[in-house]
Amino acid sequence: MKKYSQILELVRDANPLVHQITNYVTVNDCANMTICFGAAPVMSHAPQDVIDLDTAASALVLNIGTLDENQIEGMLAAGETASKRGIPIVLDPVGAGATPYRTQTAERFIDELSVTVVKGNAGEIGVLAGVSAEVRGVDSAGISGDAKEAAQRLARECGVTVVMSGAEDIITDGVRTLGVRNGVPLMGSISGTGCMANACVAAACCVAETVDACASAMAVLGIAGEKAACASSGPGTFKPAFFDAVYALTAEQFEAEAKIIEY
Amino acid sequence: MKKYSQILELVRDANPLVHQITNYVTVNDCANMTICFGAAPVMSHAPQDVIDLDTAASALVLNIGTLDENQIEGMLAAGETASKRGIPIVLDPVGAGATPYRTQTAERFIDELSVTVVKGNAGEIGVLAGVSAEVRGVDSAGISGDAKEAAQRLARECGVTVVMSGAEDIITDGVRTLGVRNGVPLMGSISGTGCMANACVAAACCVAETVDACASAMAVLGIAGEKAACASSGPGTFKPAFFDAVYALTAEQFEAEAKIIEY
Amino acid sequence: MKKYSQILELVRDANPLVHQITNYVTVNDCANMTICFGAAPVMSHAPQDVIDLDTAASALVLNIGTLDENQIEGMLAAGETASKRGIPIVLDPVGAGATPYRTQTAERFIDELSVTVVKGNAGEIGVLAGVSAEVRGVDSAGISGDAKEAAQRLARECGVTVVMSGAEDIITDGVRTLGVRNGVPLMGSISGTGCMANACVAAACCVAETVDACASAMAVLGIAGEKAACASSGPGTFKPAFFDAVYALTAEQFEAEAKIIEY
Repeated sequence: MKKYSQILELVRDANPLVHQITNYVTVNDCANMTICFGAAPVMSHAPQDVIDLDTAASALVLNIGTLDENQIEGMLAAGETASKRGIPIVLDPVGAGATPYRTQTAERFIDELSVTVVKGNAGEIGVLAGVSAEVRGVDSAGISGDAKEAAQRLARECGVTVVMSGAEDIITDGVRTLGVRNGVPLMGSISGTGCMANACVAAACCVAETVDACASAMAVLGIAGEKAACASSGPGTFKPAFFDAVYALTAEQFEAEAKIIEY
Repeated sequence: MKKYSQILELVRDANPLVHQITNYVTVNDCANMTICFGAAPVMSHAPQDVIDLDTAASALVLNIGTLDENQIEGMLAAGETASKRGIPIVLDPVGAGATPYRTQTAERFIDELSVTVVKGNAGEIGVLAGVSAEVRGVDSAGISGDAKEAAQRLARECGVTVVMSGAEDIITDGVRTLGVRNGVPLMGSISGTGCMANACVAAACCVAETVDACASAMAVLGIAGEKAACASSGPGTFKPAFFDAVYALTAEQFEAEAKIIEY
Repeated sequence: MKKYSQILELVRDANPLVHQITNYVTVNDCANMTICFGAAPVMSHAPQDVIDLDTAASALVLNIGTLDENQIEGMLAAGETASKRGIPIVLDPVGAGATPYRTQTAERFIDELSVTVVKGNAGEIGVLAGVSAEVRGVDSAGISGDAKEAAQRLARECGVTVVMSGAEDIITDGVRTLGVRNGVPLMGSISGTGCMANACVAAACCVAETVDACASAMAVLGIAGEKAACASSGPGTFKPAFFDAVYALTAEQFEAEAKIIEY
């Protein structure tokens, strides 16, 4: 597990600047989680602003959770700058499959930008992979057939690394496939766990190979979630404890508790 | 109280999808409270997105706390779809009376959409009822005359159920009037208690008669507030405890502690 | 210290309405901190709304953390109304120096509006003062030469009071210069400490002379941060404790613990 635990330490040393164009629901949690993970957040969406920001940023997160036309314009401007500079772009296709607007925008970003990672739940990944899947609001409502194969297909067809979150997180670039078996159900009882993961995945991708980076970030959050669940009495007190646990997690604890398997 | 406690259990069983177009100040709290109450939140405001979302949603919340022209456009598009489908629409006229822009927009929504519930403080309800009332920022600064009568008048004139929040919450459809006497002052020392209530009211309206549903939701929050006040040492620690208390509340506790009276 | 502790009590007595046009990242924290400090928050950005709001507001905060063209329009409309009425305007030039868009907008507001206080980190203040300074995302990345002199220069050249946040906060109107040496590093490990300070500074400026008011507000937050650090186990639990500490701070505690020096 040393390969993975080192990534957390590399992030903390490098303190990469992660530019995030994200939904207004969980944006505060994303900013705070970015700091707890050891990186630096900056949020901005205006086309006039993002091009200059992305000249300095180390990674870009695009999260379509509360999409509108203004945001798409800013995301494309930021994404093009990030694509030219070759920095990691993490796309979270929140609600793809729930509305055509979200599905088509996610597909457009994958087509037009150099997306590095697509991170979503089973329903969202299934919809983008073209298999039969269902999304209700922003939650997965199921996927037909093997979810892992859908993730691998999307990865291969689009040349991206896919992170499919769930009880077991699946990370695949179409060739190599990892599973992360950390985490607790309480992580699904707060809004924004997936959004926060985007920032951590993006930060990790700044310092390590993409599949390894994604697995490391997802394991950090899963382990922290396990610790926070012990320190809290419901979703409300879980969230502050979750931030604390990510902030305090050591490489030694990571190595002792990470459950990352290679398929 | 069994009639009311059952509503909480029905929400948890049905897990209704509550689409919320709301202010960016308390939107995260609204999403988390929706989950704690047993429903599923989805936030979205773009006209391109909301029409498709509202084909799947079970209820719609319109909260004008940080209104602008784009949001009005999205609210009207969502509201028209929701009106056609006959799902509950909860309107929170935040700051009506503080500015003409807010007052007129709230009145326009009541006119043009099939609004089910109007939920506000005494000042906001008084202004919409046409009695002498005052709103300072987003807080009630008083209402002249009998607040209950103002709520009943608005309910009758507009064909809506009115929820007037306060030390005693008043719920009325113009015929039947209930009072909910749960809650603590600390609920007024955090931003967003009223906004969170909208989501719970909307979820409850998906599974029960409207007046009963509103009273049940307001009582759940009031009881949870009482419990959270005991478990916290100020507004900051109150909020996480408030989420925990709603999440953990049982039907038995509800029945033992709810103070719902029929006028 | 009585001069400064009284300001907190005056705010709590007056409960001034503080209109804030601010970024969507930390807006919820700003609303809650405003309440904990003893003032009343109202957030609104639409030109149609802000002019009427600012007829009632006691102070205005302009925070450019997530700037776009719509927001600039609203900020100018609100700022002009506030300027005419002579109420305090607090400008936080978040990220000035990181992008030309932010730098130029901050400069435009200082030029066109009657800005009372400019509050930023050393990098932002340095950039606006025209000295060599660097801003990375929204964080100061250093300033060349004496930071205090840069703050004084900006204050004199623009006729504003400058609050430069840091391990020691510097407050100066170009003539009188104060230092506030309260606070803990954990305040920098959450997103939004600076944003929350804007609201408190604005509220304090409603009831006292500007330099004194700024020092008092910064000391309140610093002392509260020290208390919250003792009551928390990381950035996640620090934030709720921070709100509690501001809410509970007494004038006696302030006098015992404030470290305000006059240069």
